[in-house]
Amino acid sequence: MKIALAQLNYHIGNFEDNTKKIIQTIHNQKQNGVDLVVFSELCICGYPPRDFLEYPEFIEICKASADEIAKETKGIACIIGLPMVNPVVEGKDLFNVAFFIEDGEIKQIIKKALLPTYDVFDEYRYFEPAKEFKCVDFKGHKIALTICEDLWNLGDNPLYQICPMDELMKEEPDLMINIAASPFAYNHDEERIFVLSQNSRKYNLPLFYVNHVGAQTELIFDGGSLVFDRAGDLISEFDYFKEEVRVFDIEQVQSAIVLSKESPRQNDTEQVYQALILGIKDYFKKSGFKQAILGLSGGIDSAVVCALACEALGAENVMAVLMPSKYSSDHSIKDAEDLAKNIGCKQTIIPIKDIADAFDETLAKEFTGLAANITEENIQARSRGVLLMAMSNKFGYILLNTSNKSESAVGYGTLYGDMCGAISVIGDCYKTQVYQLAEYINREREIIPINTINKAPSAELRPDQKDSDSLPDYDILDKILFEYIEMKKSSKAIIADGYDEVLVNRIIKLVNKAEFKRYQTPPTLRVSPKAFGMGRRMPIVGKYLT
Amino acid sequence: MKIALAQLNYHIGNFEDNTKKIIQTIHNQKQNGVDLVVFSELCICGYPPRDFLEYPEFIEICKASADEIAKETKGIACIIGLPMVNPVVEGKDLFNVAFFIEDGEIKQIIKKALLPTYDVFDEYRYFEPAKEFKCVDFKGHKIALTICEDLWNLGDNPLYQICPMDELMKEEPDLMINIAASPFAYNHDEERIFVLSQNSRKYNLPLFYVNHVGAQTELIFDGGSLVFDRAGDLISEFDYFKEEVRVFDIEQVQSAIVLSKESPRQNDTEQVYQALILGIKDYFKKSGFKQAILGLSGGIDSAVVCALACEALGAENVMAVLMPSKYSSDHSIKDAEDLAKNIGCKQTIIPIKDIADAFDETLAKEFTGLAANITEENIQARSRGVLLMAMSNKFGYILLNTSNKSESAVGYGTLYGDMCGAISVIGDCYKTQVYQLAEYINREREIIPINTINKAPSAELRPDQKDSDSLPDYDILDKILFEYIEMKKSSKAIIADGYDEVLVNRIIKLVNKAEFKRYQTPPTLRVSPKAFGMGRRMPIVGKYLT
Repeated sequence: MKIALAQLNYHIGNFEDNTKKIIQTIHNQKQNGVDLVVFSELCICGYPPRDFLEYPEFIEICKASADEIAKETKGIACIIGLPMVNPVVEGKDLFNVAFFIEDGEIKQIIKKALLPTYDVFDEYRYFEPAKEFKCVDFKGHKIALTICEDLWNLGDNPLYQICPMDELMKEEPDLMINIAASPFAYNHDEERIFVLSQNSRKYNLPLFYVNHVGAQTELIFDGGSLVFDRAGDLISEFDYFKEEVRVFDIEQVQSAIVLSKESPRQNDTEQVYQALILGIKDYFKKSGFKQAILGLSGGIDSAVVCALACEALGAENVMAVLMPSKYSSDHSIKDAEDLAKNIGCKQTIIPIKDIADAFDETLAKEFTGLAANITEENIQARSRGVLLMAMSNKFGYILLNTSNKSESAVGYGTLYGDMCGAISVIGDCYKTQVYQLAEYINREREIIPINTINKAPSAELRPDQKDSDSLPDYDILDKILFEYIEMKKSSKAIIADGYDEVLVNRIIKLVNKAEFKRYQTPPTLRVSPKAFGMGRRMPIVGKYLT
Repeated sequence: MKIALAQLNYHIGNFEDNTKKIIQTIHNQKQNGVDLVVFSELCICGYPPRDFLEYPEFIEICKASADEIAKETKGIACIIGLPMVNPVVEGKDLFNVAFFIEDGEIKQIIKKALLPTYDVFDEYRYFEPAKEFKCVDFKGHKIALTICEDLWNLGDNPLYQICPMDELMKEEPDLMINIAASPFAYNHDEERIFVLSQNSRKYNLPLFYVNHVGAQTELIFDGGSLVFDRAGDLISEFDYFKEEVRVFDIEQVQSAIVLSKESPRQNDTEQVYQALILGIKDYFKKSGFKQAILGLSGGIDSAVVCALACEALGAENVMAVLMPSKYSSDHSIKDAEDLAKNIGCKQTIIPIKDIADAFDETLAKEFTGLAANITEENIQARSRGVLLMAMSNKFGYILLNTSNKSESAVGYGTLYGDMCGAISVIGDCYKTQVYQLAEYINREREIIPINTINKAPSAELRPDQKDSDSLPDYDILDKILFEYIEMKKSSKAIIADGYDEVLVNRIIKLVNKAEFKRYQTPPTLRVSPKAFGMGRRMPIVGKYLT
């Protein structure tokens, strides 16, 4: 029996394109002599559909799309994922299901039991968990078909009390198929391979795992679909961040013949780089945009975002705007120009002096007798924001935000100024990770000027300003932030790890006090296990540790 | 037996103040001869604590606060709400519990079973549902003690499969106590009274219901705690939007003596008005701010926000800034000045002409040969945003956003311009509701100039612009929006209700296309059953109905 695993990129709510893509794949694989084509979780509507799931019409269209696909399965079978109405009155209105479709008919419906409701996931907001489990019989095989999280309890996951595979094993299946929508985080691929391999080993069954690929605003699905033999050995690992269909002969996988040799996995920085490229690409493509704009300061953050955008969209589609003020150093302008030259993007210089002066003069009456302070710094940042948005409005460019996670964490940024943008590209990368990305970008030639990498970071909003005037070295800052944000440690525990008490308390206070700013920041491409945005929900008027 | 119901205003994560307030109330009620003081759900940490619940230290402090309170209960009992560690490894890490504390000891722990995970609620993100139920014995009474949602399944709520009161009835309790954190929506008070009354009737028991009061950023808890006799008759309804403690003699309530006559409930507009006042007041108080600033255009939205802010904070703490452009009509300036005079707030005029000119001149090189369009309109709105933020930065004013729900819905607003602000005051009020608020504000005298109320709405960003140039009348627009947003109807269903097909499809498209804007708007005071913000989660790159 031949099985095709289809790792495809879907678009939320774009039923026409998703359905067309699925049907096309079914037709192609039929010509390949394939018996069963497997698509990923909620492939009909894209993942995550969020509150569109609360619109009955949305659910009806999902069903209609499935019916349309079913018609195209004469002589072949497929597995698709979609939301389905819960016929029972009690409980949530929907199930997250897989349809097993064979020869034009929906033969069986498999429901998801373990509903992730943590971090970026809200599945219990919409779905009722499955309570019954049944294998699928197909061409002499008994298939234990599950949906994503349902394989993430091997009887030892403290989150769950049910283990769907334990239930399915009562029917003695001879293979496992899992359809998933598992988003990227730099540490998630190893974890995924480990957990899935453990499933194969525990149940002594081969496993075919199909993941979603493609970015949906914040969430970047990395693909990397997997096949394991019954010993838990990895015998196929799909490309990451790319659409791909591979065909397997089930009998061969069952007898543990290694079908393909895989390339060694990429390191975290390469993965993050690829993820961000896909994140930008899909944000533009799925929103119907082509051209990006960003402010280029000569610093490392905007340089890295510019390089990523040029790789994702083509340098000819990226407009870099230099907006020097009286505090901008000559080297900043030169560094920014060098980058634009190295990379070949469009570039223009719009000095902000006259605008900042106009603000100062207009406000002179109000500010009589008061010294310049952060107000005037913010006016500069906001004047740049207005200029970039004006260019965006006039020419249809989409503004990329260039804030990094370290500054976003401590609130070191100007709301409606440098915090503007349609999407935050490196907002989930700490400053130290931004330097790693810069080095990776320069792996073959100097794209980001060495001077940009080597000089001390500065916002250049007042004379001789340096980030280190008000923040500790990023090496230390990022470690403290990681312990607080990703590891959720208490200040006591972080101090016990050897960091200065006053510093730790100051940093945590800054993080908590900046919630109001982060609330209004653009969506951020998520590459870590704990990104700002939908996966981290904090009170704004809270007083804890502020 | 005397029972005191304490309807108090807590502050998320402010353990010191919350604990102090609870202890003070216990002391006072002890002197009143009260046997049992009942506080609301999660009173120790405030509701909703959101992802602070994922910090183990936060949970430890909750327990320590409870221990501190327990020490103060010599000779008296109390019920408090807090999150507690789930001692079992499987399942979520926490329970949402009520501690029954008596004479210095935590005598019993009651867990919440029905965990709202819809709209603004995320309880299953954190909490494991209770599976066992037990009454509390106290001074010869058997108390069925439940937490909020646990009374919202009378065996007929399609969301839930468990009915906690049915379980508790097996022990034959003689009264019910429910501690809640139930946020305001203009239609929620009647619903609440109906459901709770049905509980009393179904179980033939008196019910003491204590709600949270006070605003926590978006969510406004309205209090309105309730007491019902065993026939389901309402015998006490607490004040709305105010802290209040009332004492009851349980024996008298059981025998259905009406203890107090209540004033007739307020109408929706009055309720919304009170809710917004509390929302502003608590946002400022809990954030440690005193003074507000806003742009006053002469239009109805900023006028209503100004009046609300003056009522909430005192007119002397509100700064209204008039920022006329060359398109501002004389009557706009006069109307804005009249309002400021009527209300007595601070006022200043900062014309934006020089700034808009500076932007135009600076961009002239880039925009050569291109006609003025929405770009220049947005520059005006954004110049105002920068000016207001500059005033905010220099003087410590907090910027109030003045967008209404109708314009927020259709994306009729400028990001980083008029969409700036720390909190959106009327962002959950449709334009037609804003007019109702204006009439209510003028109930005794003309505060909002009649001309502001009577003139056609206009953004005044180009000559003779009117909202009606690009939008239907608000009467129609708001009804279509309500059907789509609050009622989640399909375009077909809305058209079937008698609205123009082209118009309906255009409006829905506008709503869905504006998700990216709403993502970056300030938190919005929630007064409806479906507000933009935490309770409505939509994909940004989705293509459904765009």
